[in-house]
Amino acid sequence: MNKPARILLPMMALSCFSIPSMVSAEAVSALSDAKKFKENMEAAVPRPEQQKQADTKLATLKQKTGKRPNVLILMVDDLGYGDVGAFGGGVAIGAATPNIDALAQGGLKLTSTYSQTTCTPTRSAMITGRLPVRTGLYRPILAGDKLTANPWDDEITSAKLMSDAGYETILTGKWHVGEAVGMRPQDVGFDEFYGYYRAQKEYVQAYDKRRYPDLVLDKEKFAKYQSIEQSQGLVHGFKNGKTKDLTPIRSIDDMANADRMLKEFTVKKIKTLAKGNKPFYLQHSFMKTHADNHPPKAFEGASASKYAFKDAVVEVDAYVGEIVEALRESGQLENTLIFFTSDNGPQSDSWPDAGYTPFRGGKGTGWDGAVRIPGIAYWKGMIKPGQVSDGLFDLMDIFNTSVALAGVLDKVPSDKYIDGIDQTAFLLADNGQSMRDKVFIWSQKDFLAMRMNEYKIHFKVITTDSQFLNIDMATIKDIGLAPWLFNLYIDPKEQYPVGHRRNAWLGSMGAESKAHAATFKQYPPKDVGL
Amino acid sequence: MNKPARILLPMMALSCFSIPSMVSAEAVSALSDAKKFKENMEAAVPRPEQQKQADTKLATLKQKTGKRPNVLILMVDDLGYGDVGAFGGGVAIGAATPNIDALAQGGLKLTSTYSQTTCTPTRSAMITGRLPVRTGLYRPILAGDKLTANPWDDEITSAKLMSDAGYETILTGKWHVGEAVGMRPQDVGFDEFYGYYRAQKEYVQAYDKRRYPDLVLDKEKFAKYQSIEQSQGLVHGFKNGKTKDLTPIRSIDDMANADRMLKEFTVKKIKTLAKGNKPFYLQHSFMKTHADNHPPKAFEGASASKYAFKDAVVEVDAYVGEIVEALRESGQLENTLIFFTSDNGPQSDSWPDAGYTPFRGGKGTGWDGAVRIPGIAYWKGMIKPGQVSDGLFDLMDIFNTSVALAGVLDKVPSDKYIDGIDQTAFLLADNGQSMRDKVFIWSQKDFLAMRMNEYKIHFKVITTDSQFLNIDMATIKDIGLAPWLFNLYIDPKEQYPVGHRRNAWLGSMGAESKAHAATFKQYPPKDVGL
Repeated sequence: MNKPARILLPMMALSCFSIPSMVSAEAVSALSDAKKFKENMEAAVPRPEQQKQADTKLATLKQKTGKRPNVLILMVDDLGYGDVGAFGGGVAIGAATPNIDALAQGGLKLTSTYSQTTCTPTRSAMITGRLPVRTGLYRPILAGDKLTANPWDDEITSAKLMSDAGYETILTGKWHVGEAVGMRPQDVGFDEFYGYYRAQKEYVQAYDKRRYPDLVLDKEKFAKYQSIEQSQGLVHGFKNGKTKDLTPIRSIDDMANADRMLKEFTVKKIKTLAKGNKPFYLQHSFMKTHADNHPPKAFEGASASKYAFKDAVVEVDAYVGEIVEALRESGQLENTLIFFTSDNGPQSDSWPDAGYTPFRGGKGTGWDGAVRIPGIAYWKGMIKPGQVSDGLFDLMDIFNTSVALAGVLDKVPSDKYIDGIDQTAFLLADNGQSMRDKVFIWSQKDFLAMRMNEYKIHFKVITTDSQFLNIDMATIKDIGLAPWLFNLYIDPKEQYPVGHRRNAWLGSMGAESKAHAATFKQYPPKDVGL
Repeated sequence: MNKPARILLPMMALSCFSIPSMVSAEAVSALSDAKKFKENMEAAVPRPEQQKQADTKLATLKQKTGKRPNVLILMVDDLGYGDVGAFGGGVAIGAATPNIDALAQGGLKLTSTYSQTTCTPTRSAMITGRLPVRTGLYRPILAGDKLTANPWDDEITSAKLMSDAGYETILTGKWHVGEAVGMRPQDVGFDEFYGYYRAQKEYVQAYDKRRYPDLVLDKEKFAKYQSIEQSQGLVHGFKNGKTKDLTPIRSIDDMANADRMLKEFTVKKIKTLAKGNKPFYLQHSFMKTHADNHPPKAFEGASASKYAFKDAVVEVDAYVGEIVEALRESGQLENTLIFFTSDNGPQSDSWPDAGYTPFRGGKGTGWDGAVRIPGIAYWKGMIKPGQVSDGLFDLMDIFNTSVALAGVLDKVPSDKYIDGIDQTAFLLADNGQSMRDKVFIWSQKDFLAMRMNEYKIHFKVITTDSQFLNIDMATIKDIGLAPWLFNLYIDPKEQYPVGHRRNAWLGSMGAESKAHAATFKQYPPKDVGL
């Protein structure tokens, strides 16, 4: 059923550089100390001292609480690296983020956190620990798509592993990785789902005649559109149980209030969970700040900027504060790893209803503007406050790290390639260093780029073919003479290629890329007809 | 002697917009609450409550110390907004800045601090409170220049006003605003000067045969070059006293060690001053991080990046720590306003020996990359820690603010236009707001742009005419149809003009620009033959 897909790898390009002919799943590289611990798992840099410190901390905590720790993921939609005050934005760009900044100052600010290039792949990768090209979950499944198989069928999520291991697993908010039966959060491991299947724009567009007149005011088209529309709004579903449609989106105001309702659910849920005996994995996925943002009355003009996107940032920040406060009030703050992040960089086409990144490009490309996003790990009493690290963190690492905290790392399947790395030791050790030294950047079936330490190498580049910055008019181009190599320390905007200046690294990086490619031979990716 | 210069004002362009015909030194503007308090002084936004709070704080402090407060300016050369950790860089780009970050976290981080477009004009403006186009001090005075007058002759510096008022006034480090007698720091108000007349590159180029072979290895040219060379290196001068040449720069190593020597001088000087009865104004102007940066042995490879520029950032940060520590040890920390900043944005031509800005363009342009620089006001016990403000602060405001702290604001000349604003109340009031709502951006005799609140309007734009980002190949262009208007909250990179979308503001901004232009009619700028 799952035939290998046509994977476009940069073999041609790499061969120009007389890369050593060795092609194995483990590379020999002057740039890397990573080691394979299991054949099917991404190589990680061994840090035994850190691991010891983390294990001691965790054992001491467990002695105190008698429980395994909770995991709370706070994921904002399309928020840029630069939107957060602690990452250079905030007050400076007209939308203060005091609550998020407090998490950064009170924990570990991760300046090199990487997502996938868009929403769906990031969300699937984060809970499978696998690159979307392997799972087939690399873009939204649309109404017209004829799949040959359900890509979720043989995937094992962190939610499932943790639910099986006695955790309560909940997704509040946005899903966007399939809405047919078998593809919903409550079908793939979450005990409970309270949220929306899609992005804000997809609901609100039907009610915004000013912005979408050709959809809304053309009665015939509109009727057809509504006839193929499935998801109506807020959904509440349970594993092996009933799924109810709650409040439908029937106006712009309905959408404006969505995040408030989601926050209320999460706050209440945390208080209930705190009274129970089970630890929890709760992923709170905000609907905002994905376009189209409409502020609820309480947040209209709440930002200094007054623009809808900025008001949405202020709203999200306020809710982050309330959710953290719910943990504190219910006595769970010391027993919960909080991870704050975004699913990808700003969506330039929806500007001015879009975020800000200091980096090049935005959502949908292979540039850092797309995939380098804010990352904050906060854990009162467990993560030393005031830390900043540029150690690499891939959101897929949340899969392994969560499962490790639940004590069921040994339940991770051994017949599938796992791209995530258990970063517990990095996060918990004082002044810890990342166990990861490489991040691979894919767009659907195209291997675009790799970041390795401070270097980034591009095999294909996505640029825009319009005079403006519209990613809706993007082209994907093969590299020319040689891969494009950037040093992100001296060139965070990826403007000045240094391939020929730094060709000392090209061999090593080529070998690493080829080793990455080899994992697809050993573990063929799925083809589900997308 | 001082004839009005040809000043290029954007009258033509503005007239396209049927700006109200009123041209006075005070504008009627929907965007501004600024008021003229004195005819020759820039309009300021009245904030009486803040002023009261600041006055009370200052009176209480004076009661305790029996002295007026000290002012310590820490100015780095060519450091970009994004180089500092607290402003989005630091660890993220391979050069941690823990000491500078500590000042930001312990004080007031100013995310909208503005300099002039290059080094000389910023340095002259900061101590005269006047736009360089008014004083003639808008570019380095070169060996071949035939001036018709010394532009310093009738300028009054903060150093002079404060020296006259009983302060010790010291400049350590870089000057770059003239080196002939009558133009040196010790001639224009500083009691003492210990530093260099020029930028690092100008000294070290004669000893770097690898980078400047056409200068160094051509014996004939080199001999000529040395014959017109005046400044040899470190100088120690006193007002009305002797000026001695100390250590000349005779090798790359000599330059590498310059900042260490400057720091040692300042640290020792602070300890001496602390024992005296006089308050002090000390401007510590680092030689680094202007190209060419050469690390001294102790800092070679000290940054994660290992590049010379980054090592220079780490070195500067370490010295900031030592200088602040000297204040603490000598008991002056509570009685000293510390202001940390840079003289302009990164110099793109010297990359990779150059800084980083998230904004558009770099040194020498009118874009924020050139003129928006890190600004931190720190004053233990007087400025509430942990504040961030995007209120406008122009480095010319340091003139007025310093003089106000010395209690001699009434000694500021009334026959010259003063562009600086006394920002004491903004800096000292808890959660204070800026008294400034406009910043005017000039390049030599060209009025380029104005920032007003979060808006920025360009009348002329400086772009590069090369395929690369070389500002050494810049062109200056008049605007086309209408001024280019950007909203920096939603568009910090100045990419998406919004003039036609926000033309509600164009009238007001036009009126403000014309009022600014009118000040040049009332107070004609100097022409000294530059």
